[in-house]
Amino acid sequence: MKLQLDPDRLFPVDTRGREIARELYESVADAPIISPHGHVDPGILLRDEPFGDAAELFIRYDHYVTRVLHSVGISLSELGLPTSDGADAAAGSRDVWRTFSANWHLYAGTASGYWLQSTFAEQFGLTEQPDAENADRLFEAIQAKLDDRAFRPRALFARFGIEVLATTDDPMSDLHVHDALAADPTFTGRVVPTFRPDAYLNPLADGWKERVESLASWNGTNPGGFRGYLDALAGRRHYFVEHGAVSADHGTPQPLAIDLEEGEASRLFEQALAGTLDDAGARAFSAHMLFQMARMSVDDGLVMTVHPGVFRNHHTETLQRYGADTGHDLPVRTHYVEPLRPLLERFGNAPGFHLVLFTVDETSFSREIAPLAGFYPSVFIGAPWWFLDAPDAVQRFRAASTETAGFYKGSGFVDDTRAFMSIPARHDMSRRLDAAYLARLVGEGRIDLERAQSVIVDLVVNQPKKVFKL
Amino acid sequence: MKLQLDPDRLFPVDTRGREIARELYESVADAPIISPHGHVDPGILLRDEPFGDAAELFIRYDHYVTRVLHSVGISLSELGLPTSDGADAAAGSRDVWRTFSANWHLYAGTASGYWLQSTFAEQFGLTEQPDAENADRLFEAIQAKLDDRAFRPRALFARFGIEVLATTDDPMSDLHVHDALAADPTFTGRVVPTFRPDAYLNPLADGWKERVESLASWNGTNPGGFRGYLDALAGRRHYFVEHGAVSADHGTPQPLAIDLEEGEASRLFEQALAGTLDDAGARAFSAHMLFQMARMSVDDGLVMTVHPGVFRNHHTETLQRYGADTGHDLPVRTHYVEPLRPLLERFGNAPGFHLVLFTVDETSFSREIAPLAGFYPSVFIGAPWWFLDAPDAVQRFRAASTETAGFYKGSGFVDDTRAFMSIPARHDMSRRLDAAYLARLVGEGRIDLERAQSVIVDLVVNQPKKVFKL
Amino acid sequence: MKLQLDPDRLFPVDTRGREIARELYESVADAPIISPHGHVDPGILLRDEPFGDAAELFIRYDHYVTRVLHSVGISLSELGLPTSDGADAAAGSRDVWRTFSANWHLYAGTASGYWLQSTFAEQFGLTEQPDAENADRLFEAIQAKLDDRAFRPRALFARFGIEVLATTDDPMSDLHVHDALAADPTFTGRVVPTFRPDAYLNPLADGWKERVESLASWNGTNPGGFRGYLDALAGRRHYFVEHGAVSADHGTPQPLAIDLEEGEASRLFEQALAGTLDDAGARAFSAHMLFQMARMSVDDGLVMTVHPGVFRNHHTETLQRYGADTGHDLPVRTHYVEPLRPLLERFGNAPGFHLVLFTVDETSFSREIAPLAGFYPSVFIGAPWWFLDAPDAVQRFRAASTETAGFYKGSGFVDDTRAFMSIPARHDMSRRLDAAYLARLVGEGRIDLERAQSVIVDLVVNQPKKVFKL
Repeated sequence: MKLQLDPDRLFPVDTRGREIARELYESVADAPIISPHGHVDPGILLRDEPFGDAAELFIRYDHYVTRVLHSVGISLSELGLPTSDGADAAAGSRDVWRTFSANWHLYAGTASGYWLQSTFAEQFGLTEQPDAENADRLFEAIQAKLDDRAFRPRALFARFGIEVLATTDDPMSDLHVHDALAADPTFTGRVVPTFRPDAYLNPLADGWKERVESLASWNGTNPGGFRGYLDALAGRRHYFVEHGAVSADHGTPQPLAIDLEEGEASRLFEQALAGTLDDAGARAFSAHMLFQMARMSVDDGLVMTVHPGVFRNHHTETLQRYGADTGHDLPVRTHYVEPLRPLLERFGNAPGFHLVLFTVDETSFSREIAPLAGFYPSVFIGAPWWFLDAPDAVQRFRAASTETAGFYKGSGFVDDTRAFMSIPARHDMSRRLDAAYLARLVGEGRIDLERAQSVIVDLVVNQPKKVFKL
Repeated sequence: MKLQLDPDRLFPVDTRGREIARELYESVADAPIISPHGHVDPGILLRDEPFGDAAELFIRYDHYVTRVLHSVGISLSELGLPTSDGADAAAGSRDVWRTFSANWHLYAGTASGYWLQSTFAEQFGLTEQPDAENADRLFEAIQAKLDDRAFRPRALFARFGIEVLATTDDPMSDLHVHDALAADPTFTGRVVPTFRPDAYLNPLADGWKERVESLASWNGTNPGGFRGYLDALAGRRHYFVEHGAVSADHGTPQPLAIDLEEGEASRLFEQALAGTLDDAGARAFSAHMLFQMARMSVDDGLVMTVHPGVFRNHHTETLQRYGADTGHDLPVRTHYVEPLRPLLERFGNAPGFHLVLFTVDETSFSREIAPLAGFYPSVFIGAPWWFLDAPDAVQRFRAASTETAGFYKGSGFVDDTRAFMSIPARHDMSRRLDAAYLARLVGEGRIDLERAQSVIVDLVVNQPKKVFKL
Repeated sequence: MKLQLDPDRLFPVDTRGREIARELYESVADAPIISPHGHVDPGILLRDEPFGDAAELFIRYDHYVTRVLHSVGISLSELGLPTSDGADAAAGSRDVWRTFSANWHLYAGTASGYWLQSTFAEQFGLTEQPDAENADRLFEAIQAKLDDRAFRPRALFARFGIEVLATTDDPMSDLHVHDALAADPTFTGRVVPTFRPDAYLNPLADGWKERVESLASWNGTNPGGFRGYLDALAGRRHYFVEHGAVSADHGTPQPLAIDLEEGEASRLFEQALAGTLDDAGARAFSAHMLFQMARMSVDDGLVMTVHPGVFRNHHTETLQRYGADTGHDLPVRTHYVEPLRPLLERFGNAPGFHLVLFTVDETSFSREIAPLAGFYPSVFIGAPWWFLDAPDAVQRFRAASTETAGFYKGSGFVDDTRAFMSIPARHDMSRRLDAAYLARLVGEGRIDLERAQSVIVDLVVNQPKKVFKL
């Protein structure tokens, strides 16, 4: 089966809508990429070594891709993942790629399928869709590219037109990779760290106590106790700010914020260290720490992003055999208006505070997130994320949020990806969908073409810079 | 940027769909306006004085409009709202209008932006979109119209083609404004009051006790106690019926109805008066009063409308500085099937009982409201309300409810507005969207054009009269 | 009003989309019908007697149809339903049909309206839409057909092209009707039973204790107690497997599964028999039995289908007068990720286990069901069901689930109907909608036409056979 990209993909199907969308898209198609939140390892840019092979690059480390194959009964070992006990042999790259190719039809219509086919065609020049017969040939065609210097990470960074790339980092990281990149005169890109403190804020997280101890000891002058813990967090945030960070990211089961009195918070903290805190107490403490993070963001200016509503590691056996991030993190219903109230009561109108609310429960766009962003100056609507990062879901998001909050309370597109190679396809998809949505509004006489022309530039270029203070 | 209304706005973009929609729309474009629920002050019609100026008319009193500007950090003082303590000066109308105009792009794609541009063009003949440069010129152009007798409220009432306009009124109102309007031979419009007893039913509402006392004393023969309270409510409802009311409206956090035994209800009532009722008791009492209101509607024939699911006054500081209805009432998830069961068990099949269920949680349309309306003769689906009163949301509503409940269990369009000047644009929008939806079904071969022609007349003209007993 | 079916009904309205959809549809329009779950009485095929009349066939026994008329105030007695106390006379068929015909406009745009008009036109050759004037004429035209041998059930079964039809059966049924059909050389169709044990699993169900006793005594060797109860259930499942069943179906208020220790489960079982089990205990026991059913499905291979989220018999008075399944079963919010976790932890990756999750809360498609199906090999997405079995809802389902789970984790179409006559129209609708959805993706450049051509065959022919092990 041939692999050919439709130059008008994702545009409306009616002639006039398609023409308008094409015109709008062309005005931003080559705009620099702003990627203010994601999970690319900055080390790949520092080392600038070749990517491994097609299976390494596209499959093994991407749980969006492996889950599709797992869902039809292919084990993660067959997809190249090692088991923690070494009991099952991980398949080699050739076999992984063959398995993927023979099952490529499973990706039809999916988010991963969309960017994979874009990347195969645009970056690797493939002209056939993968299948059982051509698997080896395509594997080698991809390898030939990967062996080329033009496919080293830095060359791609430049060719992709990335202006800013944010990574996600442990609060105790010394950020030496970022420092080295910034100091390297041969690399002119901007790569900024992001403060991601979840494992330091939730007493139920594995290793929380050890992390708290590492926090307490890092600068040698810690007063100890809850106050010392807060000071250390603020100190680490400051360190990140000094090293270029613009945001702090928070993954929480629910976006619950509670303003505890300091004595109560301190009491829960000590119980947690002593191992005597119950689940309700742990939830209260975590919720208080979300509140504290907002307070610190007001102080230090880091944009606060919240990614809630995910039930992590649903299948314990898979967690134990293959580790986390292996495809069984699953969305649950998520609410914002009531749980976030204490935080917004206190900081919702604070000057300079930016709070970006993401969701995997799309019912919250029209019911809660857009209405919150439509009042509070601090609140911005996070771009569709994870399970919602696909053409139809993005259009539902636009329709659900724009009528209440307009175009100027969104975060701008966020690729949120580990897959460096997918970045241009993801941003291109978003630009096409923005063009398509605006073209529809123009076609329906709801906005003028001239307005649409300025809105799309704002959506792609200006809004992410403004929201993420870039 | 030019301001020009597309005569085919909101219609489908395909040629045939557009032609069908245009034909359907034309058959109802000039139908009289039935407005069975809204918040226009009837005093403006009695006094028939000129509206103030562009800022008074469009911005200052409309929290749908001010919230958009507030959401980008413009204070309500800058939008002309006085603070309760007088600390911040409220901006003057010229400045408010300039601020609005400079930020007009924020309204692109929003519900308010839609009706504002319609009204600017159709009622005021503006041909430019507001911006920083033309703000003063447009302000004056609007003023010139407002100074014209043709823009006095009564002239507009006639020009808009309003057949019935319902207001929203305090149960203790003597309705003298309605009486005076009805008695005025120079005003031939029909303006009816609506009984809105929330603040008399919820013990947690500010001033509840004083209101209950005013109820108890109004007719001089009150037996006192819970029984007296019920009698007084029934009496005031009767007063409203005598003065033309057709419906009673209920805003509740959740649509919960409980059938308490009279002794228990009476006990909660006395505790509430004594100030000893806890929150759970207050919720139970409020839920019982929703049940009682249904009982009274069965008795006196007032259509019962319920507007639930709004968290009022989310931001206390804004409430304290600027009062209620300032943009931070926010939707929360809302359920109907289980909470309303006691009410529907008792009254769901009662002859003549009409219960109109509104929502700001659009998930409830397909899951609960349409299925309820698809069985109970008393239940009608409230038109999309508040955050959902916009083109895409309305189309989602139609798609979510029609397949289960058909076209004949909707309330008909309800503008629910304080903004008198917006009424024609809102009703026109609804008619266009009805035409567009029907045209799509015709285009997809799901209904015949002839059927669509009769349905649209029923939707616009007959259904609201039938549901609201007009 | 004429009754004419658009040959392109449900296809996209744009020219190219319509052409693609037509081509895709044609490739599956005449494919055999696989109906792996439904409620047709197999006795009608065994007896092969003529259907009664138009009212019997289309109205009286179909609560989807009667509810629409009930919702405008027509009593169920007027629709031919007898009351349990015989107080109200049930209307005769002629009158029922007249009432239906005079109110036919109520069905415009509804799911029932869609298949009724398809069936009137395609099966009965009607050329007019029912109305008050033509009611008798159409009644007679339908009767003339029903009197024809070509309208006997077996002739229709053949003409409809039904390859497999699953019924729904009581666990204690001896399945003699299925046996007789299988043994009848003059009937070559495949009709398979389905194990539906709800009333045997839920201690709150009327007659649960008697059912448990019948289970315990059926094979004469029952050890008694909870263990005997489980053995008997497993035995009856085995009996169904031997008689051709491929699936077991479960209707639960919520899809809650709990893995109790045997001692605890046994204790709850004994309390339930003794009548001392409280509601929380009953829920826990039912949830444990859902877990047990999964375990048994892993053992015996019966596909496990779950139909949760319905509040049954909302209006007690209607239940008492007319019985169950009279139109007041109503959807409530439904969650899957957390409630089903114990079951999926244990059996989610079990080889050969198939778990099909249906919903009447469409928010769960994108948020929970598709993500679950996108990881667990056992989980399949149930086709839109009940209130969601209509064109727009089906398209929302496709859009909400495909981007996460692709095309190969759906159940295939399930008609779930009591109305034998509606089967071809329902399957035809589904095929048209699949074609329309795929045509849109092709038109938007998201998949190739060649891919769409293979996907639609898989959706219609292969997927239901694979999922239901047919």
